[in-house]
Amino acid sequence: MLIPNWLARAAAQAPQRVALIAADVPCTYAELEQAATACASEIAALPIQPGSRIGLLARNGLPYATVVHALMQIDAILVPLNARLTPAEIAWQMLDAGCALLIYDDAHATMVEAIARDVPATGQRHRLGAGLQVMVMAGASSEIPSAPSLLLRATIDLAAPQAIIYTSGTTGRPKGAIITYGMQYWSALGSLLNLGHQRDDRWLAVLPFFHVGGLAILMRAVITMTSVVIHERFDAAAVNVAIRAHEVTLISVVTVMLQRLLADLDASGAALPTLRAVLLGGGPAPAPLLRTCADRALPVLQTYGMTESCSQAVTLPPEDALRKLGSAGLPLGSVELAIWRDGSPAPVGTDGEIMLRGPTITPGYWNRPDANTAVFTDGWFASGDIGRRDADGYLYVLDRRDDLIIAGGENIYPAEIEAALLAHPAVAEAGVRGAPDARWGQTPIAYIVPAPGQTLIPDEVATFLVDRLAKYKLPTRIIVVDALPRNGAGKLLRRELPVPENSRAAH
Amino acid sequence: MLIPNWLARAAAQAPQRVALIAADVPCTYAELEQAATACASEIAALPIQPGSRIGLLARNGLPYATVVHALMQIDAILVPLNARLTPAEIAWQMLDAGCALLIYDDAHATMVEAIARDVPATGQRHRLGAGLQVMVMAGASSEIPSAPSLLLRATIDLAAPQAIIYTSGTTGRPKGAIITYGMQYWSALGSLLNLGHQRDDRWLAVLPFFHVGGLAILMRAVITMTSVVIHERFDAAAVNVAIRAHEVTLISVVTVMLQRLLADLDASGAALPTLRAVLLGGGPAPAPLLRTCADRALPVLQTYGMTESCSQAVTLPPEDALRKLGSAGLPLGSVELAIWRDGSPAPVGTDGEIMLRGPTITPGYWNRPDANTAVFTDGWFASGDIGRRDADGYLYVLDRRDDLIIAGGENIYPAEIEAALLAHPAVAEAGVRGAPDARWGQTPIAYIVPAPGQTLIPDEVATFLVDRLAKYKLPTRIIVVDALPRNGAGKLLRRELPVPENSRAAH
Repeated sequence: MLIPNWLARAAAQAPQRVALIAADVPCTYAELEQAATACASEIAALPIQPGSRIGLLARNGLPYATVVHALMQIDAILVPLNARLTPAEIAWQMLDAGCALLIYDDAHATMVEAIARDVPATGQRHRLGAGLQVMVMAGASSEIPSAPSLLLRATIDLAAPQAIIYTSGTTGRPKGAIITYGMQYWSALGSLLNLGHQRDDRWLAVLPFFHVGGLAILMRAVITMTSVVIHERFDAAAVNVAIRAHEVTLISVVTVMLQRLLADLDASGAALPTLRAVLLGGGPAPAPLLRTCADRALPVLQTYGMTESCSQAVTLPPEDALRKLGSAGLPLGSVELAIWRDGSPAPVGTDGEIMLRGPTITPGYWNRPDANTAVFTDGWFASGDIGRRDADGYLYVLDRRDDLIIAGGENIYPAEIEAALLAHPAVAEAGVRGAPDARWGQTPIAYIVPAPGQTLIPDEVATFLVDRLAKYKLPTRIIVVDALPRNGAGKLLRRELPVPENSRAAH
Repeated sequence: MLIPNWLARAAAQAPQRVALIAADVPCTYAELEQAATACASEIAALPIQPGSRIGLLARNGLPYATVVHALMQIDAILVPLNARLTPAEIAWQMLDAGCALLIYDDAHATMVEAIARDVPATGQRHRLGAGLQVMVMAGASSEIPSAPSLLLRATIDLAAPQAIIYTSGTTGRPKGAIITYGMQYWSALGSLLNLGHQRDDRWLAVLPFFHVGGLAILMRAVITMTSVVIHERFDAAAVNVAIRAHEVTLISVVTVMLQRLLADLDASGAALPTLRAVLLGGGPAPAPLLRTCADRALPVLQTYGMTESCSQAVTLPPEDALRKLGSAGLPLGSVELAIWRDGSPAPVGTDGEIMLRGPTITPGYWNRPDANTAVFTDGWFASGDIGRRDADGYLYVLDRRDDLIIAGGENIYPAEIEAALLAHPAVAEAGVRGAPDARWGQTPIAYIVPAPGQTLIPDEVATFLVDRLAKYKLPTRIIVVDALPRNGAGKLLRRELPVPENSRAAH
């Protein structure tokens, strides 16, 4: 289905309305469209075609938003790259997606030099406006782009991919979830049906745009012609100040952020009267935290979602914030939610796998027919997470995907860390699990078994991992053992790995 | 695209929320779903198939809403019949749509006996609950419905037709505009993006449900899980009381209703503090009326739409109510608006034909390939109305469709009245036009030329029309003349028909 280009529509209907406030500087919809169009023309002059994948490695800010909108105008597919990953991890994703270009900001220039060693870059570099640069990949189309195919698009095809966002998988190899324009559209409208809609809403975006939760804020704003206040990084005091200064009405956070916002409010004694909802995602929240927020009349709504569901899929309705404390709420808009056990719906109140279906769910993973076959059944997406619905249909998320570790809102899959450990010549077996952490919620800890006749020194293994894994994925403790717990079939039983008394001790 | 059944979703997520208030009695979403499901089962036991057209002739009220939702559950297509038409006019529409059943309430039982004379009815009658009856048509499927095909649907296919609504055409022969579920869905979301969305919104429905403007209120409510206050007929005092009693936030009216609401407010001295928007449709509004409303802080927003656009297509945003007084506003949601002259876009500020495109526009007329060819160009729907956009893109409707007469919000096409006049054996030529009317905005007046050697008596001709035309279409004056103004090609020039000094005089 074709619908009018969102940004063009916002620029035509509300040219003077503030689209973004970045570094406290407002940018209207007219200005944003002008910037995006100029950027689109520059990118269109490079060797790409409609459907080309374009990597983006940049801080949250106006340039990031400009590129997102520019790519939309030329039918190019955004591949937002997680700046917390190592150059090797990013290179792997770029190769998997077959990126034609890598767009990056000055802050990531050094990182890009490291990435360039692992990808077939041409050495060709171009400067875009706003401090952005482009590295052209050798695999990119060699043709000069034909003008008509890269015309600025007046309409958006809701079935077309807008982005490919990599998400770690249980098998350890990241998968590129395809995010269509339709997913963004239906997600935005589902959110608005749940939260209500004020034409002067302002959403503070402090989640990184390379995660779907951050990107969806940008999209939701332009779809609803409301405003986004962009923060480059999370600073509790700065966020609390910005909420008051810019009359922010909505914000999305993960647990660790909410804790720090509360601490800062305690310290400053300030209130946030304009805020009408705090969406809390990134894993189950501790009940005491939710109660504290309720006591302080901070309108926190738990939400459940993932890359594959284009951010929120299930969110607590505002009027149930207290009545259903601890629940992630009801499926949004046109999302269907079910709990399955052994391949069929489970009775009310029973635990089972959380299944999702609807127009906000990914059509599949990029070039991964195996993974698609594994997670889809009759259009139902198997989340891998365990949950339960109460008699009123409210979802309680009991456990995130099998063995998933969530550290400060970032998903970490043990298999990925184990694969990195197994790359060490002296490691015969590796097992990783999450351990509770007061600050981040969880951190990964690793158990390793030396190869016959080898000796393993934890610090040496930790050093080995540094170039291979993003910092947040590095085990906070590495423990050498003789054997790992396995079942009869030899499958690693990660939950039986012991949690050390003080898991935050240096490894 | 399949999405969860709206009513089932509302009943599951908000069972205790008020869905409707009819005759001051609230009905929750759980109760409405129960009633609709029971009604669906009764209808499904009659000789119909998925896709059968079902006529509905009833007053605004809970039974009407119940049938609308029931038909949705069994994939039957609603044909809402305008109770103001004559039995002959209704019979024509039922035959054109090939209705399998006619569902009606007790208030229309006598009318149905008259309709039955013009349609191949079987004589079979059934009673449904809630004072509704069903007449089975001879043309209906004779098969016993197979259970699986009429299972209650858990999902809605947005591309499927929900209704066929007849709309008068310039050629005089009504056309059945197909209204899909998707049109209702996108229309509801477009409205909500424009007006904002409060989860406790209440929309007062006093427009008849057999018009798209009334039906769309019912659909919008269930899609957004908000409430509708239903009035069976327009009574200004009762509406003003209900707005206060039920804390109504939104209402749709036509000009004549708004004038009477204002008069009643003047008489009672009451205010309507809960009302956040009054949508004013059904033709251009007089500027003095808009100014009076602005002076009284009544938040009136002009809107432009038609059956083929599933009600509102263009509406004034709330913040522009004063700044753009007189404008119908901006295209809603994903609607595209253009002004064309001679088959291509006209420059800004130029008058031309109002063209619409997008997911809220009808896919076409029922069994009318000729009409579809005539009104669609590259997906653009030609409204037949004349308008202009200002430099900011705001629409000003200059003239409704060629020669269209709008009386109290009802569309009247001169050609239809002329055809009825020409059926009189002594009428050789007939010409109809609108004349200003203080109460209804416009009323039709007729000019007739006697056949050679014949004498025409206006009162006798008026009597002749009574069974052939709905009451609101009857000319308020019939004038006998020797000739009608025509151009060189013999085409009737209706605008050159004189408007009598006192066009409200008895004919």
